[in-house]
Amino acid sequence: MPGAPVEPHLFIVLGGRGDLMRRKLLPALARLILQGFLKEDCQVLGAARSPELDDGKFRALAREALAAADLFADDQIARWCDECLHYQPIGRGGTEDYRSLAARVEALERAYCLPGNRVFYLAMPPAAFPNAITGIGETRLNRGPGWTRLVIEKPFGRDLASAQELNRLIHRFFDESQIFRIDHYLGKETVQNLLVFRFANAIFESLWNRDRVESVHITVAENLGVEKRADYYEQAGALRDIVQNHLTQLLTLVAMEVPAAFEADAIRYEKVKVLRSISPIRPEDVVFGQYERAPMDDGDVPGYREEPGVAPDSTTETFVALRLEIANWRWQGVPFYLRTGKRLPRRLTQIVVTFRYPPVSLFRPFDACEIHANVLIITIQPDEGFDLSFEVKAPGQPITLLTQRLHFRYAEAFGPLPDAYETLLLDILTGDQTLFVHADEVEASWRLYTPLLEQKPPVHPYPARTWGPVAADHLLAREGRQWLNL
Amino acid sequence: MPGAPVEPHLFIVLGGRGDLMRRKLLPALARLILQGFLKEDCQVLGAARSPELDDGKFRALAREALAAADLFADDQIARWCDECLHYQPIGRGGTEDYRSLAARVEALERAYCLPGNRVFYLAMPPAAFPNAITGIGETRLNRGPGWTRLVIEKPFGRDLASAQELNRLIHRFFDESQIFRIDHYLGKETVQNLLVFRFANAIFESLWNRDRVESVHITVAENLGVEKRADYYEQAGALRDIVQNHLTQLLTLVAMEVPAAFEADAIRYEKVKVLRSISPIRPEDVVFGQYERAPMDDGDVPGYREEPGVAPDSTTETFVALRLEIANWRWQGVPFYLRTGKRLPRRLTQIVVTFRYPPVSLFRPFDACEIHANVLIITIQPDEGFDLSFEVKAPGQPITLLTQRLHFRYAEAFGPLPDAYETLLLDILTGDQTLFVHADEVEASWRLYTPLLEQKPPVHPYPARTWGPVAADHLLAREGRQWLNL
Repeated sequence: MPGAPVEPHLFIVLGGRGDLMRRKLLPALARLILQGFLKEDCQVLGAARSPELDDGKFRALAREALAAADLFADDQIARWCDECLHYQPIGRGGTEDYRSLAARVEALERAYCLPGNRVFYLAMPPAAFPNAITGIGETRLNRGPGWTRLVIEKPFGRDLASAQELNRLIHRFFDESQIFRIDHYLGKETVQNLLVFRFANAIFESLWNRDRVESVHITVAENLGVEKRADYYEQAGALRDIVQNHLTQLLTLVAMEVPAAFEADAIRYEKVKVLRSISPIRPEDVVFGQYERAPMDDGDVPGYREEPGVAPDSTTETFVALRLEIANWRWQGVPFYLRTGKRLPRRLTQIVVTFRYPPVSLFRPFDACEIHANVLIITIQPDEGFDLSFEVKAPGQPITLLTQRLHFRYAEAFGPLPDAYETLLLDILTGDQTLFVHADEVEASWRLYTPLLEQKPPVHPYPARTWGPVAADHLLAREGRQWLNL
Repeated sequence: MPGAPVEPHLFIVLGGRGDLMRRKLLPALARLILQGFLKEDCQVLGAARSPELDDGKFRALAREALAAADLFADDQIARWCDECLHYQPIGRGGTEDYRSLAARVEALERAYCLPGNRVFYLAMPPAAFPNAITGIGETRLNRGPGWTRLVIEKPFGRDLASAQELNRLIHRFFDESQIFRIDHYLGKETVQNLLVFRFANAIFESLWNRDRVESVHITVAENLGVEKRADYYEQAGALRDIVQNHLTQLLTLVAMEVPAAFEADAIRYEKVKVLRSISPIRPEDVVFGQYERAPMDDGDVPGYREEPGVAPDSTTETFVALRLEIANWRWQGVPFYLRTGKRLPRRLTQIVVTFRYPPVSLFRPFDACEIHANVLIITIQPDEGFDLSFEVKAPGQPITLLTQRLHFRYAEAFGPLPDAYETLLLDILTGDQTLFVHADEVEASWRLYTPLLEQKPPVHPYPARTWGPVAADHLLAREGRQWLNL
């Protein structure tokens, strides 16, 4: 339940020396400390390979990371680093290493009088998940005297079979109610607000169906290229990296039925129902792309195949656009278009709901009276907010319609939004699974996309800093639509 | 048709020395000149009692009026005053006076080679209407070689019988298609935009019915008192001054069905249909009020009975609130609340459409999750625009709903709006009756309100600069509602 207190616990980060720990988890924990959600009975244990680290060095690294995040001005944070952070080397993660970890966990629990509540956060590459899960399970670290929670980051498998295998392994040692699969998009305020927007605003919910909605577009655009992640990305590609998880999560939240209650199980049940109602995606409805070198005023942008660590003949897709339909009573016949890509013109995550045209255009006899459909734009990043386009009369004669926007921006109303990890960590620590991904969702999503990986569509090149291959525009144009690139 | 050209004509203002001419008609004509809608073949003839005025003095007065409206900087306007303005005294308006007027009209038409198109604008007190109409008719001024249009200002009668009588008299000499009854509210951009808003925006039209709308409030609030108009106001009162015309026009535009076309006849037909569907107003659904002296920081505000020209025991109502229902398929069961008053806290004309609550509150289990209904606020003056209130999640945990607004302001998008008279004059000159009131509308409206005049409800006092008598709040409170005083 949101709002429940955080019970005393030990927060164990496997991969505690990594990027995620430094850039996301430590700052999020520190902000929760500052807001009073965490007390000194919440201890943190970083575990990683490095044998040369100890508590002192680990704390020094943490202080650096927090200073970089502008969080070290406060005495409280300095004290927290010194009193609540610990380190345990786990080498290559053999049985002996996990036995040492178990001994350390128990020692800390005794030293700090903790009731044995444990969070295991797997902040490591996915290849290391099975060994870590087995290590935790076989040393019975998952059987402490209190509750145990397992947090894992995407990717959850790389296709249906591997996802099922991973879920089977996790379920050997953990019950689904203990597992927190993180899709950090779900921690974003705007994404959470999608549900509030839909179910607390009767007017929108009454428009939210095939009678009123003409089409839905969801875009997750990145302006960056593959950066330093070529190792991972060459194996993954955009479908695994973004479509199967983030884009599909957004899709299910947009399309789901009203849940029976605002609770994890009820919501996740409805999300799975959406996934199961999606018709198989037709090959002609999918466009893969890969960015190519493009000359720019500020210097050439390299193509994907020129990036360090990428094979010169790589066919990894850095762009996916696809069309799908949800064959249920609410959505039959309404196309949903999903799109993601690297090196697009800008960073943008946006849901665009286009409503149907007025059945009759009363204003057609007049010049300049082309009517545009109403469009609801939900922007998730950057500049989070809502825009509802509508037609107004321009002042003066003759009647001229202009499209204007009713708009709302979170930052104008509330100032900066909390980081997604802050939200998600608090949910993990209070045991609220609403914003986490259920095994059934993972598998239903892979079931949908795995055929596209098995029979991979051709990969069309597109110049860096454009909105993807022309074929992605055709996907909509053939039905008289176009992407909204705002 | 809007956008049609203005044909050469003579614009005859009866009451050409009055307030309306000086403050509204001359500035509006001048702005139309500056925008190129009117040319030098559009001549203006002021007619009034004053025998001491002549063309020269009349032009001098016009120049003063235009200078006061900041419209005299332009050479073009100076030339227009000298070359296009004329004056004809008509004394007490006897037959001889109208014969002289007719001779002058024909002389001007010859002198300026005009085709005999004539506008007769009755800018005079309503008591003078019958004599003027008869004068025009009996001298056959209404039978010129071109078209003839008659413009009259409210009030159109003071009850059903007098309105019918006035209409009968007008119809002796003019066809309904020649009659332009002005309700200047209809010239306001925001009022015209009501129709565009409703019929060019499919999402709102689909919400615009008893299934989705919980109630509608329409407020025309004035912060001024009776000022110098006690003579008129003592005879009129708020019901005749505002409710029967302005408020009822707003009501019909909000409630009407989609017309067959965006044309005068089709729209006026739908407006009459709304009026005929309104159930008789029950006496217990009407509150009359009269403002009383109120002490203020900046000095006492006098009560209505203390105003110069008002009887010390006057029972004239300066405030009306009422509830009515429209018994048709679209609106059955949805209450419409109308309200107007003088000396209210501020000047405000606003339509508030409150939508129904979500049928289920998913967020009720959480603290601070009282859901508010969505509300559409259409502000007609001041600060014209639209606001749509909706619920969002406040950032952070636990889930807290806050009401925020999607908003749009005309001034932000388009700068200052044209004056209503500018719009209406251009429509008169191009023959577009869409924004004018049909005889049937006048009579249907009086049919609705005359019973309230015949059996006048008690007049409750209210302190100046408050939102009217407590009884007006009870009118809504007894059904669990309240006025929105934004």
